[in-house]
Amino acid sequence: MEERAMTSKLSALILAGGFGTRLWPSSREHKPKHLLALTGDNSLMRDTFLRVAPMIASEQVYVVTGESHVQEVRAQLPELPHGNIIVEPQGKGTAPCIGLSALYMKRRNPDGIMASLHADHVIADAEGFRWALRSAAVLAEKGYIVTLGITPRWAETGFGYIERGERVANTDAGDAYQVVRFTEKPDADTAQRFISTGRFYWNSGIFVWKLSRILEEIRTLLPDLHKHLEEIDAAIGSPQEREVLEAVWPRIQSVTIDVGIMERAERVAVVPISVGWNDVGSWKAVWEMMSADDDGNVVAGKHIGLDTSNTLIWGGERLIATIGLDDMLIVDTEDVVLVCRKERSQDVKMLVEALRREKKNRYL
Amino acid sequence: MEERAMTSKLSALILAGGFGTRLWPSSREHKPKHLLALTGDNSLMRDTFLRVAPMIASEQVYVVTGESHVQEVRAQLPELPHGNIIVEPQGKGTAPCIGLSALYMKRRNPDGIMASLHADHVIADAEGFRWALRSAAVLAEKGYIVTLGITPRWAETGFGYIERGERVANTDAGDAYQVVRFTEKPDADTAQRFISTGRFYWNSGIFVWKLSRILEEIRTLLPDLHKHLEEIDAAIGSPQEREVLEAVWPRIQSVTIDVGIMERAERVAVVPISVGWNDVGSWKAVWEMMSADDDGNVVAGKHIGLDTSNTLIWGGERLIATIGLDDMLIVDTEDVVLVCRKERSQDVKMLVEALRREKKNRYL
Repeated sequence: MEERAMTSKLSALILAGGFGTRLWPSSREHKPKHLLALTGDNSLMRDTFLRVAPMIASEQVYVVTGESHVQEVRAQLPELPHGNIIVEPQGKGTAPCIGLSALYMKRRNPDGIMASLHADHVIADAEGFRWALRSAAVLAEKGYIVTLGITPRWAETGFGYIERGERVANTDAGDAYQVVRFTEKPDADTAQRFISTGRFYWNSGIFVWKLSRILEEIRTLLPDLHKHLEEIDAAIGSPQEREVLEAVWPRIQSVTIDVGIMERAERVAVVPISVGWNDVGSWKAVWEMMSADDDGNVVAGKHIGLDTSNTLIWGGERLIATIGLDDMLIVDTEDVVLVCRKERSQDVKMLVEALRREKKNRYL
Repeated sequence: MEERAMTSKLSALILAGGFGTRLWPSSREHKPKHLLALTGDNSLMRDTFLRVAPMIASEQVYVVTGESHVQEVRAQLPELPHGNIIVEPQGKGTAPCIGLSALYMKRRNPDGIMASLHADHVIADAEGFRWALRSAAVLAEKGYIVTLGITPRWAETGFGYIERGERVANTDAGDAYQVVRFTEKPDADTAQRFISTGRFYWNSGIFVWKLSRILEEIRTLLPDLHKHLEEIDAAIGSPQEREVLEAVWPRIQSVTIDVGIMERAERVAVVPISVGWNDVGSWKAVWEMMSADDDGNVVAGKHIGLDTSNTLIWGGERLIATIGLDDMLIVDTEDVVLVCRKERSQDVKMLVEALRREKKNRYL
């Protein structure tokens, strides 16, 4: 009974902003990562939607995205009421984006709980994930800010970490802990130390909270943002809604929810999950995520190779021929081919920045 | 006076057979290596023609090629009389090809001297090359079989070598030596030993001889080939010429001029040359031949890179993006992209053979 009541309060916010620079050249400004079908027939965004569909009705699912992607979001999520697509005039980091979305969501569900999900994550075990969301919602109902912490699988230096403290006592939430602190991306030694303690989780960026609680935290910790959101809130539903949003938004300072809220808030809990999570944050992550052949190669498209191992061959129509490669990434698209050492996969971002500096916009 | 008389006897035979497998995927069956403009505006074949044009009139230049390339040869060498294109029904190695061509050439010039040139070699110093050809022609006139030996620039294991003996005495030929022997491709230690002696040259496959001498050698050393050539010779100029050629040719055994004649003939001389010769035998050779940027990269087409060095980027319309590469080859064509470690460039041939076995003819 209690759980059903709680679940009916649960809404999902799917964050579908950003470009997914590190998956360039497949991801582009006009076709960002979450709109790509990297893992199968569905885009990552649609998979995110389908993953929560068994527990959250589509009327309770919201997507926040940029103006230029609204059409594509509608096309990929026909189940979604059009009013559930929230348009962010420009990217300002996750805090303003979540704050804006919370304004809309609390109008429909003043006592509601929001699960904030990224549109571009892969989760192998959807059922396990929904169990964790339920636990998190129980804690959120009790007033916690809840984060899902990924049980680390290696000493990754590309993620932030969450350190846990005492177990949260006397809940129906299963395994859950007080959060001692959020940390930024560690160096390799620190990451190794973190995971050897057994007390650290990868920060998935997946959060669950009461709408009232997150808006209250914004009021306390990000008062400027709060002031701007109030201006927007006053105009919602009026003929000036769009105009006010577009006037106010550019004045908002960019800030992530992690830096702006999570690192400073009290009463934060972590629910550990081991559900095959992957943020697909780089081509290396794609290689890790997909099943490899006997040589350790992950191949999409047409390939012929000699002595090629541990390599991602990500092509389309054209033949990719390789000789003597190990630990490489090859991504072939219609107008660009990327060849990159696998351990340098994070630097694809730098390359995209270089293209932007050189105003080679046709490749962005 | 004597030299002018000799030069008027000199004809060139440009060998324009073969596919240039190791420059796949740029070179294809329908567009073999010698028809590609690798080094500039002209194809390698046209450059070969232009290189000798100052000393050999176009009426004295012959091209031997396959039926399917006759059109393209005519288009690329409009100066050439159509009758100077000799058609080889199938590739049978260089000995039958040169023998057949000698039949045609001796009819026009019974006392003639042939310079046999490959259509797909690059020679930076054309003037130096013509000087060497003149020296070789002087020796050929005296009855020698002459080969141009490349002064080795490194201990290459991909070429055959020529060992020199005594200097050829009392000629107008400049630097020239008796040949002690031709050797097959050596291993690395042997190659090192060869070049440390100062007595070895790379075998360029460029030969100069009297037509009568080479036909005589074929008669002596390759009697079966000689018999078949006689059958063909008897039909040349008759209405049955083509028919006889196509009937006889398939019965001819494949053999190279090196194995069939050079390794066994007497009175062979080598004229050393240092003229920036490159047989463009692999993509590595292309990289070596072209001028590199400060990072050691040779770039044709559009490239953006981070930490990329000593790499050949050989593209066309598409952007090639690279991160963290050293000593690599990337060749991008309309329907294939090749990514290969530079030291494995010889193995492109194996890859093409694999495509042939798998009947992926569209990529050949």
